[in-house]
Amino acid sequence: MAPKGNRIKELLQRGVEEIIPPTEDFGKVLSGKKKLTVYLGIDPTASNLHLGHSVNLLKLKKFQELGHKTILLIGDFTARIGDPSGKTSQRSPLTAKQVKDNLKAYKKQAGKILDFKKVEIRFNSEWLLRLRFEDVLYIASAFTVNRMLQRDMFQERLKSGNPIGLDEFLYPIMQGYDSVALKTDVEIGGSDQLFNMLVGRDLVKKHLGKEKYVLTTKLLVTSESGAKMSKSEGVVVALNDASNDMYAKVMAFSDSATRDCFELCTEIPMGEVDGIMKLSPREAKARLAREIVAMYHSRAAAQEVEREFKKVFSEGELPSDIPTKKINKKKINILDLLTGTGLVESKSEARRVVEQGGVKIDGRVVNDYEEKIDVKSGMVVQVGKRRFVKLK
Amino acid sequence: MAPKGNRIKELLQRGVEEIIPPTEDFGKVLSGKKKLTVYLGIDPTASNLHLGHSVNLLKLKKFQELGHKTILLIGDFTARIGDPSGKTSQRSPLTAKQVKDNLKAYKKQAGKILDFKKVEIRFNSEWLLRLRFEDVLYIASAFTVNRMLQRDMFQERLKSGNPIGLDEFLYPIMQGYDSVALKTDVEIGGSDQLFNMLVGRDLVKKHLGKEKYVLTTKLLVTSESGAKMSKSEGVVVALNDASNDMYAKVMAFSDSATRDCFELCTEIPMGEVDGIMKLSPREAKARLAREIVAMYHSRAAAQEVEREFKKVFSEGELPSDIPTKKINKKKINILDLLTGTGLVESKSEARRVVEQGGVKIDGRVVNDYEEKIDVKSGMVVQVGKRRFVKLK
Repeated sequence: MAPKGNRIKELLQRGVEEIIPPTEDFGKVLSGKKKLTVYLGIDPTASNLHLGHSVNLLKLKKFQELGHKTILLIGDFTARIGDPSGKTSQRSPLTAKQVKDNLKAYKKQAGKILDFKKVEIRFNSEWLLRLRFEDVLYIASAFTVNRMLQRDMFQERLKSGNPIGLDEFLYPIMQGYDSVALKTDVEIGGSDQLFNMLVGRDLVKKHLGKEKYVLTTKLLVTSESGAKMSKSEGVVVALNDASNDMYAKVMAFSDSATRDCFELCTEIPMGEVDGIMKLSPREAKARLAREIVAMYHSRAAAQEVEREFKKVFSEGELPSDIPTKKINKKKINILDLLTGTGLVESKSEARRVVEQGGVKIDGRVVNDYEEKIDVKSGMVVQVGKRRFVKLK
Repeated sequence: MAPKGNRIKELLQRGVEEIIPPTEDFGKVLSGKKKLTVYLGIDPTASNLHLGHSVNLLKLKKFQELGHKTILLIGDFTARIGDPSGKTSQRSPLTAKQVKDNLKAYKKQAGKILDFKKVEIRFNSEWLLRLRFEDVLYIASAFTVNRMLQRDMFQERLKSGNPIGLDEFLYPIMQGYDSVALKTDVEIGGSDQLFNMLVGRDLVKKHLGKEKYVLTTKLLVTSESGAKMSKSEGVVVALNDASNDMYAKVMAFSDSATRDCFELCTEIPMGEVDGIMKLSPREAKARLAREIVAMYHSRAAAQEVEREFKKVFSEGELPSDIPTKKINKKKINILDLLTGTGLVESKSEARRVVEQGGVKIDGRVVNDYEEKIDVKSGMVVQVGKRRFVKLK
């Protein structure tokens, strides 16, 4: 392992957006002998973690390697009570069992990065379910409405006349109070969490009289749109994706994202990354995809899936593991065939891909969406570059 | 007693600023047979009630007379937890005993108006101390920040850049929740409480699915400044003031306040008040002062004090009950004499009243503030028209 000084330097720089208070102060603390308490909060409503989560998990790992106490905080309080406004149907309350099941899945997924023997797992329902109104008043009194309103998302909504639920002003308070309950020295999070993390910093100062360091990581952006990887936007690489899906999804990232992705999602030394970036964009990205599959599956699986991928995309051959499907008709309209095999979601999508020339049957492009197909066993139906089905 | 229809009409009109929803609807409900639950909230931090409080107590009495269930709600929750922001030193927490003592005083004072055998007394700490964070989130989710910001006092502070504590956004919620806990049909309050009362109305609709009627009374204004009677502004007539103080304070009200005061603070029929208002302003006000003293002391006491008052003010005679004071000096400077007898608060006030020609010793005006007075037993020292001390 690299000397401690270098590891601290990497921890302070790699993938880091901001450190508050300034990096130099935090560097001094890290160089000292004090064992720090460091935590990362995770929303337990998703059943799978994705590559966006891995950025902070890797950061937490680095603190772990430096001998600090690391905590993974499961934000189950909100998940358990649901969205009190009832505005979003997605936020129906989770039962204790669901939270537990999700945690089990997270441990399996994040276990590829973190050593769970050394990570303490806490649930914020432990203290938030016990908070009383008078505690909330006391905690809230440390903040002003003026400050809450400075937050970008609130500013925008006020300007556009969109309502802000009064409960939404209380969520930062709640998240901030986690820092107090955990007596934390450091919190790690994505840069979009900065506001809430700073609320926690203020509360730690008020309630515990000490500094809480805030370390935000850069957001993982993998598409040209500039949106961060999240359930609601673009391609999401789940940490439990099958190796071939994972590889293909990374290959679908924007070329311009490759370097950031190496920095944020892998542990390859940045010097080495600089070398890789001298390859062609496609080769560099293939190297990234192989690395990521290796992290969550194995080196062998990564090599295997890369071979397959090259076969399909570079050499125009069929992949070796095409799923098969039975169609109980002898003659079928091309649109019904596409929806029946599950290659497309709807007839309108089927029609669109046919019109775009993206449909092949045994290598022949089908251009007419009224064409009737004679169903034969072993016939290969293809949509776009990557979707195949073999008929039984 | 007047017929029910007339009493309802008086209840809906006399001293009323606003009724929500509209008066006609409420009138119909009152004419029906349903026994309503009506409450009035009282802040228990003051040890004495004053004439401003009497306006709503009288209103509550009218509901009591019509057979409705009346509740006096003691807002002890805030008093018990104090001001969480610690910004105002006045708001140090009250102990349970202090709250109990204050309540005892209120019962004695308000008992001149209300029949406490028929009034239910409740404390909002009963439910507010038990509210948990998740309850607060649920209650708060019914309101928007946008709406809270519409409140005048918040608007002004935002515009002038003055901070609004986040806890201050939660107080209306708290007060509003009282209505839910009491399952109330009607809340009575001063017009400056309208915002909080409407918050309660919304919560009753959401939590109990029924209408809460809000009745606000006009604010009692007794001085030219237009400020309402309160601890912090102008002359305050406490309900337990001595009869002569009470009389003198009412006589110090602005003449223009007399009619409103009759309407708000007495039960004299408004037809009769119209007759009284045809007297001279001074006579009408004397009639008011006598009425108010009669309410809180007795008719006899009112006549007695009126006689005294007339003696001093109209006939220039000395009152018969001048307090006595011992001065342990043979010769004393006039300023020291005035402060030593407690006739003035400070030497600077003493000097001012001397310079204004407002100081008399045995009827002789003292103009020189350096004058040395020969102290004699029985000597009467007078400041202004109403302050006397007799030396022992």
